Amino acid sequence: MVYITRRERFNAAHRLFKADYSDKKNLEIFGKCSNPNWHGHNYELFITVKGDINPETGFLINLTVLRDLIRKKIISKVDHKNLNLEVDFMKGKYTSTEVLSVAIWNELEKEIEQLGATLHCVKISETENNSAEYYGE
Amino acid sequence: MVYITRRERFNAAHRLFKADYSDKKNLEIFGKCSNPNWHGHNYELFITVKGDINPETGFLINLTVLRDLIRKKIISKVDHKNLNLEVDFMKGKYTSTEVLSVAIWNELEKEIEQLGATLHCVKISETENNSAEYYGE
Amino acid sequence: MVYITRRERFNAAHRLFKADYSDKKNLEIFGKCSNPNWHGHNYELFITVKGDINPETGFLINLTVLRDLIRKKIISKVDHKNLNLEVDFMKGKYTSTEVLSVAIWNELEKEIEQLGATLHCVKISETENNSAEYYGE
Amino acid sequence: MVYITRRERFNAAHRLFKADYSDKKNLEIFGKCSNPNWHGHNYELFITVKGDINPETGFLINLTVLRDLIRKKIISKVDHKNLNLEVDFMKGKYTSTEVLSVAIWNELEKEIEQLGATLHCVKISETENNSAEYYGE
Amino acid sequence: MVYITRRERFNAAHRLFKADYSDKKNLEIFGKCSNPNWHGHNYELFITVKGDINPETGFLINLTVLRDLIRKKIISKVDHKNLNLEVDFMKGKYTSTEVLSVAIWNELEKEIEQLGATLHCVKISETENNSAEYYGE
Amino acid sequence: MVYITRRERFNAAHRLFKADYSDKKNLEIFGKCSNPNWHGHNYELFITVKGDINPETGFLINLTVLRDLIRKKIISKVDHKNLNLEVDFMKGKYTSTEVLSVAIWNELEKEIEQLGATLHCVKISETENNSAEYYGE
Repeated sequence: MVYITRRERFNAAHRLFKADYSDKKNLEIFGKCSNPNWHGHNYELFITVKGDINPETGFLINLTVLRDLIRKKIISKVDHKNLNLEVDFMKGKYTSTEVLSVAIWNELEKEIEQLGATLHCVKISETENNSAEYYGE
Repeated sequence: MVYITRRERFNAAHRLFKADYSDKKNLEIFGKCSNPNWHGHNYELFITVKGDINPETGFLINLTVLRDLIRKKIISKVDHKNLNLEVDFMKGKYTSTEVLSVAIWNELEKEIEQLGATLHCVKISETENNSAEYYGE
Repeated sequence: MVYITRRERFNAAHRLFKADYSDKKNLEIFGKCSNPNWHGHNYELFITVKGDINPETGFLINLTVLRDLIRKKIISKVDHKNLNLEVDFMKGKYTSTEVLSVAIWNELEKEIEQLGATLHCVKISETENNSAEYYGE
Repeated sequence: MVYITRRERFNAAHRLFKADYSDKKNLEIFGKCSNPNWHGHNYELFITVKGDINPETGFLINLTVLRDLIRKKIISKVDHKNLNLEVDFMKGKYTSTEVLSVAIWNELEKEIEQLGATLHCVKISETENNSAEYYGE
Repeated sequence: MVYITRRERFNAAHRLFKADYSDKKNLEIFGKCSNPNWHGHNYELFITVKGDINPETGFLINLTVLRDLIRKKIISKVDHKNLNLEVDFMKGKYTSTEVLSVAIWNELEKEIEQLGATLHCVKISETENNSAEYYGE
Repeated sequence: MVYITRRERFNAAHRLFKADYSDKKNLEIFGKCSNPNWHGHNYELFITVKGDINPETGFLINLTVLRDLIRKKIISKVDHKNLNLEVDFMKGKYTSTEVLSVAIWNELEKEIEQLGATLHCVKISETENNSAEYYGE
């Protein structure tokens, strides 16, 4: 069993807040990340898949196919978008890096299964100092 | 004459658009950067100053003082903010990286003069692929 | 269960040596790292914690709280310090990256428990080529 | 048990292809990576070993010894070489990052055992976006 | 006058050698870079252009247009190619980073003029340790 | 005229202070960098040289020769050393990044002249946030 990782990037706006809290209360809980006028990040997304090497190709999975899947299912929906307002799979959810990792896992798990590999990890770096990982359980 | 550079970072939302254009026309001119719901970036700001080394300290300028100045005059105003809506020195301006570089130059030039150094360059990296520099002329 | 990682940095001096060996013998065993006049590094510290997402906040743990804990318990004690001479939790220990990882784990494990999360990994990068990880067992 | 990782780099040419396929068929399966005139990469190799800290040295393993082993057994054979034509342990194999990871594992596993540690992971980054990992099973 | 820089990447094989020298003599002069079976790199190309900000757009030049130009004129010709054998603008030239920088300058200078900007610098990083820059004179 | 840059790295201890000041006064002026027990850094040194491309080799200068010169004249003297106590060309000088840049310029300028190139810039990164450059005047 080998693991391969593909990095993709997206630039998005977001805000951490609870709709039924006041801006003041959101500020207390979420700090500057709750700014009502939004802020944003250059997100780095690392998708790791695992499985056996296909003896016919030397690949676990064709990375071009994996790249296209990630771009179609995720990047096209989040890049240059507002994560709170415009992303179908984030509707009604907090847009923390943790929650985003889980949501992206759920979007990709079955799709990657159909490519003959198993999704192993979704990692998202929000800044050079902060990142989250989800392994599906 | 020596040059020293201080890097600071800020995370902000922005949008490239002209207010009297339709969303459609803005999309034609500014592409996905015109998204009405904003997007955002992890900006890296590099401030380069020049001058002579002070023989009493071995410094061109105390980097802690330079850091504090950049944070007070720039970072506190742009970090976790919306560059189009909330930044006094960007009011009425495009928020392209070029324009932002010039605007930050204008905020810092005299302040750095008062520290006994000369502002040499404002460089802003918007993504790992795109950056702008301004040298004051 | 999700994982989040916070990176912090510190700049410190250190030396690899055994007090009851001669400088010559220390040089044989520890190479240039045994220089009696010290050398130093820009250390990068990656603290990974794991646990469940709190449905009230969308956080596993508030990263600002985690950052403040790491800075209070670790960074304030090691940054711009001599790891052999000045750090309480390194007294009498080798200052190799491996030993440092274990020592930082021991400083943080219970503190992170009190924040409602579980310490998963302490990773330290000493240079761009060398790093150590400790998972608590 | 602790883990330490050493990074080494090598620059090599390679090509993904099957000898009994036409260039056209290789292009269909392997894309631009099948270019008959080769292409190349700056590969980054991360070797992670695990084991107990030696109380006499504070080391899991002397990183200089690990570095020299990696350079002797791997880097000297692949750096500034053609992976398909010139590397003994890649003869008759696909030169995908996955296959390369497994092959390097097999070259190093016993050697590292003799140093008193256990090989844990071979990771290879082919580009800033693509990498593979192998854990020996 | 402002400066903007666009980074693009390409992976290519090459060899430093003089055709009328023996492999032995090429090895003496060019070292391991003369390997007759080629080696390769992940090249990073930084194109810096300068000019005035267009008050209608806030741009010196639309970065998407600049990106497309670089990809059409340069990247499509060098990515996953052999720099010595397959690149029209490198025919009969050494493929050192210096020579490559000058050659790319000559391919882009007039094209960028037609976009309303002036080419300022071509920078190429061959490895994390080596790079070349050309400013057109 | 082209420019080439070689990066080398060194890990060193240092301290910012004036010998005839008290530790307290040094702390006031130099902050935590004045710690009497030293601290240290992973320094990155970027040496840029300029000149014409030799039509016989395609090189401005052989990078291996430049690398060996930097290692012999600079790195061997500063790596795993104490910049204040052990470096001949820093004796009696402040060890700020600015002063270090000028001192390294003076060590290399004539040596590079003898290689047939001209030293253009000495750049030193002390941390990911701080760097200094010197251009010889």
